[in-house]
Amino acid sequence: MALSRAQGILDELKALFGPRALLSRPEREVYRYDAIREGATPLAVVLPESTAEVQALVRLSRRYRVPLVPRGAGSGLSGGAVPLGEALVVAFTRMARLEVDSHTQTAWAEPGVTTARISEEARPFGLFYPPDPASYRTSTLGGNLGENAGGPLCFKYGVTGDYVLELEWVDASGEVHRQGRATYDFPGLLIGSEGTLGLITGARLRLLPLPRYRAALLAHFPGVEPLAEAVSEAVALGAVPARMEFMDPACANAVEDYLRMGLPRDRALLLVETDGEEADLVDEELSLVEESARRHGAEVVRAKSEAEAEALWRARRAVSPALGRIRPKRVNEDIAVPRSALPQVVREIRALGEAFGLFVVQFGHIGDGNLHPNILFDPRRESEEKVWELAHEIARVALRHGGVLSGEHGIGLMKRDFMLEAVDPETLGALHRVKEALDPLGLLNPGKVLP
Amino acid sequence: MALSRAQGILDELKALFGPRALLSRPEREVYRYDAIREGATPLAVVLPESTAEVQALVRLSRRYRVPLVPRGAGSGLSGGAVPLGEALVVAFTRMARLEVDSHTQTAWAEPGVTTARISEEARPFGLFYPPDPASYRTSTLGGNLGENAGGPLCFKYGVTGDYVLELEWVDASGEVHRQGRATYDFPGLLIGSEGTLGLITGARLRLLPLPRYRAALLAHFPGVEPLAEAVSEAVALGAVPARMEFMDPACANAVEDYLRMGLPRDRALLLVETDGEEADLVDEELSLVEESARRHGAEVVRAKSEAEAEALWRARRAVSPALGRIRPKRVNEDIAVPRSALPQVVREIRALGEAFGLFVVQFGHIGDGNLHPNILFDPRRESEEKVWELAHEIARVALRHGGVLSGEHGIGLMKRDFMLEAVDPETLGALHRVKEALDPLGLLNPGKVLP
Repeated sequence: MALSRAQGILDELKALFGPRALLSRPEREVYRYDAIREGATPLAVVLPESTAEVQALVRLSRRYRVPLVPRGAGSGLSGGAVPLGEALVVAFTRMARLEVDSHTQTAWAEPGVTTARISEEARPFGLFYPPDPASYRTSTLGGNLGENAGGPLCFKYGVTGDYVLELEWVDASGEVHRQGRATYDFPGLLIGSEGTLGLITGARLRLLPLPRYRAALLAHFPGVEPLAEAVSEAVALGAVPARMEFMDPACANAVEDYLRMGLPRDRALLLVETDGEEADLVDEELSLVEESARRHGAEVVRAKSEAEAEALWRARRAVSPALGRIRPKRVNEDIAVPRSALPQVVREIRALGEAFGLFVVQFGHIGDGNLHPNILFDPRRESEEKVWELAHEIARVALRHGGVLSGEHGIGLMKRDFMLEAVDPETLGALHRVKEALDPLGLLNPGKVLP
Repeated sequence: MALSRAQGILDELKALFGPRALLSRPEREVYRYDAIREGATPLAVVLPESTAEVQALVRLSRRYRVPLVPRGAGSGLSGGAVPLGEALVVAFTRMARLEVDSHTQTAWAEPGVTTARISEEARPFGLFYPPDPASYRTSTLGGNLGENAGGPLCFKYGVTGDYVLELEWVDASGEVHRQGRATYDFPGLLIGSEGTLGLITGARLRLLPLPRYRAALLAHFPGVEPLAEAVSEAVALGAVPARMEFMDPACANAVEDYLRMGLPRDRALLLVETDGEEADLVDEELSLVEESARRHGAEVVRAKSEAEAEALWRARRAVSPALGRIRPKRVNEDIAVPRSALPQVVREIRALGEAFGLFVVQFGHIGDGNLHPNILFDPRRESEEKVWELAHEIARVALRHGGVLSGEHGIGLMKRDFMLEAVDPETLGALHRVKEALDPLGLLNPGKVLP
């Protein structure tokens, strides 16, 4: 970029945003990363406080033909918020107004609101906001909307997009729109599009009444295959647990090494929670899962108290830090496959890990077939290229079994090129035409999603 | 259209489709109508039997620049399937393959499958397909997808789009696509777009386990306002009935005149059904509604048997034929407003009917604020222009109270021009850009949805 043009942008940003335009090198460095990838140092980082400021930023981006990269907490796992080349990062963390309306059981939230805060502020009204990505204490609504994030509760309750009634967004020409889920469903198109079609500046979210009762169990199996079969059977019998998480033996061992909480060694673990309005029914639903698990050779421990249940979920949340101790780096894959294909998929991924000679653990939201195979590696001893090759092979396993590239982390940068294999060329052409219609200059988060 | 060109189209259609290209005048006449509007006699009607035939038809449409109008059973209520000017009607009724997969709890259905058949074929597996538009015995999935149809069950279970996992569709250039609800959510964009962006040729639908228990009640109120308040209160207290339907006194009287089943005279009626896995809970939820109703001056009758409950729903389904006896014609409005605005909206619509000197009755899915104010009129004595003016004013009431133009019938032809008031010009511009990107020649159901 010519120096004088860059200087023009920076001068305008300073005038418009004052100290909320981060221009110094150390400040900007922080915004190169998400939780998985690193990109280029942005030209500047701007922290807008209103929709009008976002509009001003889009107009400036057009005038100087400089791309915008929207960003929340940077906890993403697909590189969606990582800047490529010269770009302005729009950090939405200061747009964090949140208003719960108990009468309509909705909340109006700006993109910088952290996910957990929505449920926290809804709780006094007996309400909650179900989408619960693992990072929900730090991740922001804007990022969740951009990636259409899920979480353990999504088997029963659905993903972020299922809770959006209305969106406000700024388009590539700086116009602001506000639309419900009507004809044509633009909000639906924007959700999951990672800021490539418009910048979301607010959302009306649907809240649900908090369930009155919960029950939880831990089942441990000789291996992942019988575990997957037990889950398939329980769901076919009508069980709709709120959460159904699994860890393969390597993952479970890592958690036990980390927490020392007495988890069984070398077993595949299934954690299940049911919830509802009636204690009997909640227990009955859990029993359905318990019986399926026992039929497939599991030993089952039911949580006898809220505290015991909480310990189980602490184990699940410890997966990330526990794996971080095994190797300094990891690639967290995110695929979703039909439940019926789970045993075979898990087997093939394990075999791939062995063939590549890389350390692979598997865990995830098994209820809806959303697996997170993780490749743990040490970049000083193991080739990063080979790691990405394995990640690509894992994605291929999902596609071969009728699954999809991303369960909840998004496509971002990490899976952009895999789209060539996942989407037929005709459909990809249609996606490109919509992108061009809504962002003709290609300034909104370029290089993401579309190959 | 020049005669030779028209003849060219007809010759090709005959060659491609044989007797499944309906060319004679009386046959074509039937396809001018939906349940509410009449349009132009189509140039021809074609009944394709496969996706490949739909592709051939799209290519022919491009070659001759002749528009295509997709159509199912023609039971629509917004004119979405009504041809305008010279056009080919694509009647999907012969593409009616349906395959239920009990293992994945899904069904693959072609657009010509009637809505009721999906639940019928799922029932032996203990499953059902929730969206239940009033016309579900005749309406087809393709029409339901095109209008994103709802029904009484949609308060608890959601609308058609909430059950679509994957769509197959043919785009304006004749290419076939198959895509799940991933980035970008094209299926979501197509659902409710009334065939203006592509022709849907198949859908993977999510099925749910059939609830084990049901309970129902009839509450009658001195007027609609206390009824609306009771509903608001019950929902705020946490009740999520499967169905909550209301009729104002004029509508209830019409049904009683028609059925003579002993409904109370001159009362506003509320019909409620709860369902679930546990008899106690189902009863308890119904009691919550009953108590709210009594607090607002209602008398409540609980159905003591399945037969009594069925009689209540027969009353609800009799609304259309009952109203048809009062005046020869009617306009069936379809608005959705926040529940909190219901009492005021109902009052304003009644006042508008009186001011216009037209017979207006109100009924609908009150749980989600979806009202169907119906204007009953005799075109020999009453000005149709005035009727449409009143319909427009009713739509304005909805918009003024933060509601939307259509709850479940779609925009179609009937509400196309209202879009100018419902959608800001910037958003409308974006909708047009997407339409142009996906249908550059404007041959897919032109004149619908977008003003």
